Amino acid sequence: MRELRFDPIRNRWVIISTERARRPSDYMHNDYGSTSDELVMTACPFCEGSESKTPPEIFAIRRNGSKPDSPGWRVRVVPNKYPALRIEDNANRYATGIFDVVSGAGAHEVIIETPNHNDGLADIDTERIKDVLIAFRERIRDLFADPRLRYVLIFKNHKAVAGASLSHTHSQLIATPMVPPIVKQELTASREHYRAKERCIICDLIKQEMDLKSRIVYETEGYIIWTPFASSFPFETWILPKTHLHNYSALSDNELVDLAFVLKLNLISIKNLLSDPPYNLVIHTSPSRFLRPGHPEHWDSIEYDFHWHVEIIPRLTTVAGFEWGAGLFINPTPPEIASEYLKGEIESNLDKICRVKKPLDI
Amino acid sequence: MRELRFDPIRNRWVIISTERARRPSDYMHNDYGSTSDELVMTACPFCEGSESKTPPEIFAIRRNGSKPDSPGWRVRVVPNKYPALRIEDNANRYATGIFDVVSGAGAHEVIIETPNHNDGLADIDTERIKDVLIAFRERIRDLFADPRLRYVLIFKNHKAVAGASLSHTHSQLIATPMVPPIVKQELTASREHYRAKERCIICDLIKQEMDLKSRIVYETEGYIIWTPFASSFPFETWILPKTHLHNYSALSDNELVDLAFVLKLNLISIKNLLSDPPYNLVIHTSPSRFLRPGHPEHWDSIEYDFHWHVEIIPRLTTVAGFEWGAGLFINPTPPEIASEYLKGEIESNLDKICRVKKPLDI
Repeated sequence: MRELRFDPIRNRWVIISTERARRPSDYMHNDYGSTSDELVMTACPFCEGSESKTPPEIFAIRRNGSKPDSPGWRVRVVPNKYPALRIEDNANRYATGIFDVVSGAGAHEVIIETPNHNDGLADIDTERIKDVLIAFRERIRDLFADPRLRYVLIFKNHKAVAGASLSHTHSQLIATPMVPPIVKQELTASREHYRAKERCIICDLIKQEMDLKSRIVYETEGYIIWTPFASSFPFETWILPKTHLHNYSALSDNELVDLAFVLKLNLISIKNLLSDPPYNLVIHTSPSRFLRPGHPEHWDSIEYDFHWHVEIIPRLTTVAGFEWGAGLFINPTPPEIASEYLKGEIESNLDKICRVKKPLDI
Repeated sequence: MRELRFDPIRNRWVIISTERARRPSDYMHNDYGSTSDELVMTACPFCEGSESKTPPEIFAIRRNGSKPDSPGWRVRVVPNKYPALRIEDNANRYATGIFDVVSGAGAHEVIIETPNHNDGLADIDTERIKDVLIAFRERIRDLFADPRLRYVLIFKNHKAVAGASLSHTHSQLIATPMVPPIVKQELTASREHYRAKERCIICDLIKQEMDLKSRIVYETEGYIIWTPFASSFPFETWILPKTHLHNYSALSDNELVDLAFVLKLNLISIKNLLSDPPYNLVIHTSPSRFLRPGHPEHWDSIEYDFHWHVEIIPRLTTVAGFEWGAGLFINPTPPEIASEYLKGEIESNLDKICRVKKPLDI
């Protein structure tokens, strides 16, 4: 069973997907701490040479002449073996009594960021990170050719506490037949701001924050690293493009070089400062534009309203009953202080960070 | 620093509170798995006889003649030693640039559910659970006498994974100077339903679900245990009062007897079925009614709109990047199946569960 169900009281969708577990015993293999499939694993399916252990690849950046599902790749995208949603399902919308359902059409893919088992995303060369960012872009472009899909969320879980079930560094994407609640929230807030002021809310924010400086961790030609004024989590950072653009998928290879550098700098400073903490990373970009004007999910003025960005949250605090019941997060580290620490980390390591360039062996 | 900051993009408030930790080193005492203050603790401050180890008590249900902050209590409420918000602060509302702040007036209290260190809430007698429920009610009534406070969220974190930092069974409450986002969502959805149909959305849902039966785990004279149609988490249950009422704080002692029984049944069945999993419990009740009509947080028709309830979520799955970035939860266990399992558990244990009555020793 894979379906999206709407919760009319909490006003949000939920994915019911029975691919992974369902019975009580399926949840009790771990001691209610971390989940780790690796305990029962013999060899990593994401390593070079183990291509047959994954479903057939969807996309890869490869050495000239190397064949799909064989060694010779720098980045490799495969379907998730336990997909939350599947492209083969139909996006049927229907009511059941007072409730609403959409059947589970979508996609769930894994972006294997490097063939080397022991490197993290923070460790690999900027050029290689650029390849990962290109893979993200290409997958969004391809999936948005399917008119049933309304959104593609790119995300990364680093370490078991943050949700990773395999340690070989990878990102994931889930494409959904409707715009997910938090993205919808951001789109709506951005649209309302634009309609009231004819200005982008994130452009406004960037201008103010660059004047103030207290929450700017780092700045390049194209991007800033920002600790958000209302950070939900300690040491949360956003990477904001200084130029207004709604969709990540429109970025050129050249723009991705700068982004790769900023991302590496951000990840290394978090890794050094906080002893390689678990973290989640998400890209918030605009939804698909397939729908007719007037459709509730058409987002007609999206080019003006929305400003794509990356959000990175180290998982340092436990999310407990208050956060679930209230939707209010308690953050013990003011972003101004987080910014100071991260800035210090970058300054003292910038030379070293910029020097870390492994020769391209492909 | 204790303040509430508004995130204008994600459209939600965040509490910045530096009581517990702030520097990078403060987060690195654990192995990024569980948090446990107990590792460094010598004796439990919540046990009978250790009353001097907590701040002075605010409320207690005591043996006749026993003095505050001394042994002889059945339930004891004390301020949280590391409060997220404090009653001494002012609720000042102000803007800083394009951002909004409310200073951190509120309350953060701990409800110690039993003097005995080794009993969980599921283990103690129904009469004692009723005392805990009375303490909840009395604290809400008392805090709502303060016109600065707009909401009181009662919640419980069971085990470290669910956010508990002490193992001695306890609940908490946080009172806030505005209505928290998820509660506001529920209030808004309920109000819109009532305005469109002159019916309570939860009353509608109870009627349908009791006819269908597939998601009803158990029913008493006053309550049902329900696995929500769009459960965000596996084995999530809600306790719904069959009679429409917006505010928990209006319940009589007698109504709390029935609730104590249903709650015990619910907690024991989850404990037995899932090997005593970590869980969170929250009570969603109506907000304070101090504000003048027309005020954005006045909730004028709240008696008709809202239906108080209890939500219980076992913490069996890891919340990862997709959930944070999308606000879309992936639940591998359909509520119909969860309901079957829980129903079976209750049926096979009902006799035993009803028999578990320790003599009242106070």
